Amino acid sequence: MTSPPHADPMATAAVTIAPASGLSSRTGWDVVESAFRPDLTVPSGSNFLVGNGYLGYRGTFEEDRQDGFVACVVSDTYDMADGKWQELCNAPNGLFTSLSIEGELVSPASGTVDDFERRLDLRHALFSRRLTWRSGGPAATISSERFASLSDIHLLAMRYTVTLDRAADLDLSTGIDGRVWSLNGDHFSDCRAEQVGDRLVMTATMRESGRNLVVAEALIAPALAGLPVSEGDRQIVRSGSVPVPAGDALELVKLVAIYSGNDVADPRAAALAGLDRALAAGYDRLKADHAAAWDAQWADTDVRIDGDPVAQVALRFCLYHNIIATPAHSDHLPVGARGLSCQAYQGAAFWDQEIFNLPAFLFTRPAVARALLTFRHKTLDGARGKARRLGYRGAFYAWVSGASGEELCPDFFFKDVLSGRPIRNHFNVWQIHVSPDIVYAIRQYWRATGDWDFIVEFGAEIVFEVARFLVSHAYFKEDKNRYELIRLLGPDEYHENVDNNAFTNHMAAFALHTAAAIHERLATENAERLAALAKSIDLDADEPSTWTRVGDRMYLPEPDPETRLIPQFDGFFGLADRRPDEVRQDLKDPGEYWGWPNGVAVHTQVSKQADVVQLFCLHDVFDDAVVRANYDYYEPRCQHGSSLSYSAHALVAARIGHADQAYDYFLRTARVDLENTAKAVSGGTFIGGIHTAACAGAWQVAVFGFGGVRLVDGALAIDPRLPERWSALSFPIAYRGGHMTVTATRDGVTVTADPNNPAPLPLRVAGVPVDLAPGEAFGPQSARSTS
Amino acid sequence: MTSPPHADPMATAAVTIAPASGLSSRTGWDVVESAFRPDLTVPSGSNFLVGNGYLGYRGTFEEDRQDGFVACVVSDTYDMADGKWQELCNAPNGLFTSLSIEGELVSPASGTVDDFERRLDLRHALFSRRLTWRSGGPAATISSERFASLSDIHLLAMRYTVTLDRAADLDLSTGIDGRVWSLNGDHFSDCRAEQVGDRLVMTATMRESGRNLVVAEALIAPALAGLPVSEGDRQIVRSGSVPVPAGDALELVKLVAIYSGNDVADPRAAALAGLDRALAAGYDRLKADHAAAWDAQWADTDVRIDGDPVAQVALRFCLYHNIIATPAHSDHLPVGARGLSCQAYQGAAFWDQEIFNLPAFLFTRPAVARALLTFRHKTLDGARGKARRLGYRGAFYAWVSGASGEELCPDFFFKDVLSGRPIRNHFNVWQIHVSPDIVYAIRQYWRATGDWDFIVEFGAEIVFEVARFLVSHAYFKEDKNRYELIRLLGPDEYHENVDNNAFTNHMAAFALHTAAAIHERLATENAERLAALAKSIDLDADEPSTWTRVGDRMYLPEPDPETRLIPQFDGFFGLADRRPDEVRQDLKDPGEYWGWPNGVAVHTQVSKQADVVQLFCLHDVFDDAVVRANYDYYEPRCQHGSSLSYSAHALVAARIGHADQAYDYFLRTARVDLENTAKAVSGGTFIGGIHTAACAGAWQVAVFGFGGVRLVDGALAIDPRLPERWSALSFPIAYRGGHMTVTATRDGVTVTADPNNPAPLPLRVAGVPVDLAPGEAFGPQSARSTS
Repeated sequence: MTSPPHADPMATAAVTIAPASGLSSRTGWDVVESAFRPDLTVPSGSNFLVGNGYLGYRGTFEEDRQDGFVACVVSDTYDMADGKWQELCNAPNGLFTSLSIEGELVSPASGTVDDFERRLDLRHALFSRRLTWRSGGPAATISSERFASLSDIHLLAMRYTVTLDRAADLDLSTGIDGRVWSLNGDHFSDCRAEQVGDRLVMTATMRESGRNLVVAEALIAPALAGLPVSEGDRQIVRSGSVPVPAGDALELVKLVAIYSGNDVADPRAAALAGLDRALAAGYDRLKADHAAAWDAQWADTDVRIDGDPVAQVALRFCLYHNIIATPAHSDHLPVGARGLSCQAYQGAAFWDQEIFNLPAFLFTRPAVARALLTFRHKTLDGARGKARRLGYRGAFYAWVSGASGEELCPDFFFKDVLSGRPIRNHFNVWQIHVSPDIVYAIRQYWRATGDWDFIVEFGAEIVFEVARFLVSHAYFKEDKNRYELIRLLGPDEYHENVDNNAFTNHMAAFALHTAAAIHERLATENAERLAALAKSIDLDADEPSTWTRVGDRMYLPEPDPETRLIPQFDGFFGLADRRPDEVRQDLKDPGEYWGWPNGVAVHTQVSKQADVVQLFCLHDVFDDAVVRANYDYYEPRCQHGSSLSYSAHALVAARIGHADQAYDYFLRTARVDLENTAKAVSGGTFIGGIHTAACAGAWQVAVFGFGGVRLVDGALAIDPRLPERWSALSFPIAYRGGHMTVTATRDGVTVTADPNNPAPLPLRVAGVPVDLAPGEAFGPQSARSTS
Repeated sequence: MTSPPHADPMATAAVTIAPASGLSSRTGWDVVESAFRPDLTVPSGSNFLVGNGYLGYRGTFEEDRQDGFVACVVSDTYDMADGKWQELCNAPNGLFTSLSIEGELVSPASGTVDDFERRLDLRHALFSRRLTWRSGGPAATISSERFASLSDIHLLAMRYTVTLDRAADLDLSTGIDGRVWSLNGDHFSDCRAEQVGDRLVMTATMRESGRNLVVAEALIAPALAGLPVSEGDRQIVRSGSVPVPAGDALELVKLVAIYSGNDVADPRAAALAGLDRALAAGYDRLKADHAAAWDAQWADTDVRIDGDPVAQVALRFCLYHNIIATPAHSDHLPVGARGLSCQAYQGAAFWDQEIFNLPAFLFTRPAVARALLTFRHKTLDGARGKARRLGYRGAFYAWVSGASGEELCPDFFFKDVLSGRPIRNHFNVWQIHVSPDIVYAIRQYWRATGDWDFIVEFGAEIVFEVARFLVSHAYFKEDKNRYELIRLLGPDEYHENVDNNAFTNHMAAFALHTAAAIHERLATENAERLAALAKSIDLDADEPSTWTRVGDRMYLPEPDPETRLIPQFDGFFGLADRRPDEVRQDLKDPGEYWGWPNGVAVHTQVSKQADVVQLFCLHDVFDDAVVRANYDYYEPRCQHGSSLSYSAHALVAARIGHADQAYDYFLRTARVDLENTAKAVSGGTFIGGIHTAACAGAWQVAVFGFGGVRLVDGALAIDPRLPERWSALSFPIAYRGGHMTVTATRDGVTVTADPNNPAPLPLRVAGVPVDLAPGEAFGPQSARSTS
């Protein structure tokens, strides 16, 4: 790809990007914390996370331990320790390093601290921190830098230096700390430490699978050679007193390799071998390879905003987090709702994956979107099992899906904080829209990439099984001559147990029609494969016509002819017409869950998040007047109790020309984590961490909302409408096997096709149909924003 | 009818009938309280109630006021004062009379009391009380007697005497006290007192209707002539000091007439006229007429038990209360779930009316059963309106039905006592079985009486409209080729929101088939009437075949082939298998509601009351092995949190030969009120008063359970099985326009037909088919109990 065409607008001035949490940016590519905020320990750990889709290492300090919420969350390590919550494991902390001077721990939480800085370099995914510390004795200046390699995803690397203003003995301890934070139980039935040559190794045995998670660490620090190694409870460290001359930098480099038994047969051998390779390359080479991988990543991904440094950094922060959350290396792992930033949400996929995270890959690195959808194919058996257990046919995807596709969502999710009783939420059995959501994503993938092979190989089976599930879930209402979906939970989770949720019914009808369409094309083009598939899933000849019939007669709540309003579900407008701020007054405890069974929102029209509005984000079947009427009605009644809500509102607001609201919601979705506005605990359950869907939603708002990109029949429409303060917006787009760069300015929109594209790209630029040949540019064409 | 054949077994000895509340019986026909129990003020008021189906006057003392829970509940005075609960009005208390001696109120709650007795004569429905009171001054002996006339239902009468052991001045006050107890708000927007000649009149204007409830009172007491009348706030009394010589009885008689604007156009005139008639007749004549009416009533109703005085009195107590609760004078009023004993349950019909109260009339005074079913016809429009509002067709009967048939059950019924928040219970929208229950009662009425005219005139329309409702409620499940009923509340109210409740689905299928059968017979025999009816309710020609189809393919959960268990609803056996006593330990507050949404029973198999067991009470379609397996499974999991539960368990236990349990549950249903075992408040809502359905259920256990009476094809089967301690059981039965007496002893069963019967009665006595001619007897035939 060509590199972004704009000069960096923020190379010099520091800009406050998140006042509430005291974060700023100096380069447009970094997030900087200049004063340590102990009250933000948990969110700071997430915000300054480094990761690579395989592991996420929280942005804590080297000397931090369990009580500082240190965690290195490793993908594909699902384990249940408490009989209820299966979640990813936090690996032993191989970067652990602490210093004491005269008996006192060097840490921003103690002593006097000057020149404090914690910084995340988004461009090259580098964490760094710096401080000068004093407490009576000599002043120590620490600088550290770390990364989770994008070129070797099993590798963590750190460079750490300390300088004293006068000679002194430092008490130093560095090694592996296995006493890690864990949300729901101790996942290690055993934890063994050993010294292998100069290297330290910790092998933790996961409770459920019995497989091992291995952390191997090497230290490169000539000054520390020969420090004695000691083992404690889940700890193996080199420690001792080291004399440090005044002004000399004591430097140490640590390399850490992490493998689990789900990655390789012998994770210990793999970790030691990986460590040897890393030692051979050395820190600088590893860092250069890592940076090159990120340069390539950004070339495919970066969205440039001119004229709005805050939006620019916040959006890059979001893209960064969406990337490091996503297991692009794998086709059998999901994007966790909190990525790898912590154990919350069980490291598992929700509908977020297809509806929020995936589009940002579909139009930048479509192979990643393919891998995520392939994950859904690999988990079909889990979905089939869930359907069968609940008395349905086909595939009922888990609301919370780890690698197996088994339902990880427990029956009792939240807690009634007033009575202390667990609440039987029904996310796992009533929120069926996840299945048609996956079909929707498959259809979008197919439309955007033209990758019919994927449909043939994987997509068709998923889609057929979902269609079967939907048919077996639907009820026919004879007197109304229609199919209905009963007892649902739509996107607005405050209202469980509803009928004919407009969003779900539309998604279901779309999925049924998609299944019939794919079946028809397979029958024409891939009859042999279809025959094999039909045999393997026992498909009756009349099922496809049933899909069409049920899809055609699926009840789709119509807009009221007068008000144009679409009821979110049957009887919605009969609920108490209250607003979120009023309803909040009814809380008896701020930690109360607002929803089922008797929370403050249940009997009101207050929604947790976009629902009818969410429908408009996905289906272009309503005219603007309907969309506007519904947005205007539902928006003030929405509490945005889910981080998914802002981007949906921004997208729809952008479509209907509510420019200020679109921009406001864009910033809200982009800064959910930077500003730490989302609550970390709800109904007694920890839900903190990075909101990966909100991050990916920010990309959607920039590209779909302001960039005006959308799939229309047989083409990609591009019709930007920039927020007022933006002078330009530029982004790369992958489409139908080719690439292009879209640049919108006040003068219009220009689309430039990559010269290496295999074929012309069918586009509709600001309403004008164009077949853009490889290497050609079209524009500037006046777009809506400048009309 | 012939009078009962047995000598009174208890004419002499006093027997304790309810130890917990200190009640005994001297005659087998009375309930006696010998020590005043202030802790039982509310239940005593109910137990000693007098009434006649038009009004109920609680068994409180003459001097009692609001804080003593005095109430005179008048039928057909539905009024809503608080915006939520429509309930019957408590009329101003026309019997109010208080005495003071030397400034102290003569009352069992004060002074020293000897010879206290409160007594209810069940045979002649007379309340009496007596006490000798002292407090320093002269001793006063008060005796009073009252009745609510059964021969003039608007009339209350009282005779009251006081004797002093030495001459003194009595301060006396008697008149009308309009400051009455009210559960939910003040129902009188206005309350005017006046003196009309010697009579006192109070006219209370009901808030909702604006109609008047009038109480007119006359005093017959020569010694009190000329006492000055004074008016206060909702009070008009004659009061003053009266000299009473030692040993002389001061006697006063009060007559009170009560009419409302729902009874007559001018209730004031009617009350004054009624009072004049009563005055002309005089107390003794009125009492004799009243007693004669009760003699006739008992001749049709009394069930004699030999060898078990406790059971005998308890059962008579139940029959008495079922009778006085029932508006036999009307065909447009329901039996309230608490009768007229208080305002709880809104003076309204529940399914209790058809399934519990009605059978005791159907087989004793079938005209009353007809009137109750006619009430359901008169309320069809209310049921149609409810169906329409909720998106259904036909008639969806109110869960709580007053005279209009409008749904009186509020959306928010109970309260979460832990949070103080109202609970959205769904009795009004999900407990649909009340509609097919009514059809069931109609079918039973038709089978027991042969009264096809009722079906033609009223029954068919009800049944057709219910069938329509059921069709519009049912969903067709295509992949299972069956109709399902979704989102139900079965009899077990702790489990809301269930699918395919076995009880409801069976009742619905039965109702649909009944509708088709009635339609078919109408088409043959009453084609003209059918045509008119079809026109008036817009019945399509193909609807009856739809009823058959939906009825035939209604999903009826089958007994498991191995365990023989029938799931109470879909997924029931997946709930936590706990027992009521365990679950009770989870309560955080004894007043908590156990059910929806998050009560202690919700996620367990603990049921509130008989549900599958209730099904067996009504439908004879399962063999004994299935019934036994299910009874044995469900019985220990039932909390009996509803007073309806005991009789259902007794009936089924009797059928399957669990003799001890049958007897135990019989006593429990018969003594619910005597023993005061049911709680008066649940989830913050007052639910005290007489449990009329439990009372009527006791009759069912005696006659259906132990008497072995049941409707079989074309005949009445009688096959008694007596509890061990009973030497004989005898009861009258009305059937097919005739009457008979059934007498079961250890020697066998004898059935004697009334000589005035119009035709032979088709019977099956202890398994032997008999056409019993008028005046003939059959037996003794060995029955199961003696085999």
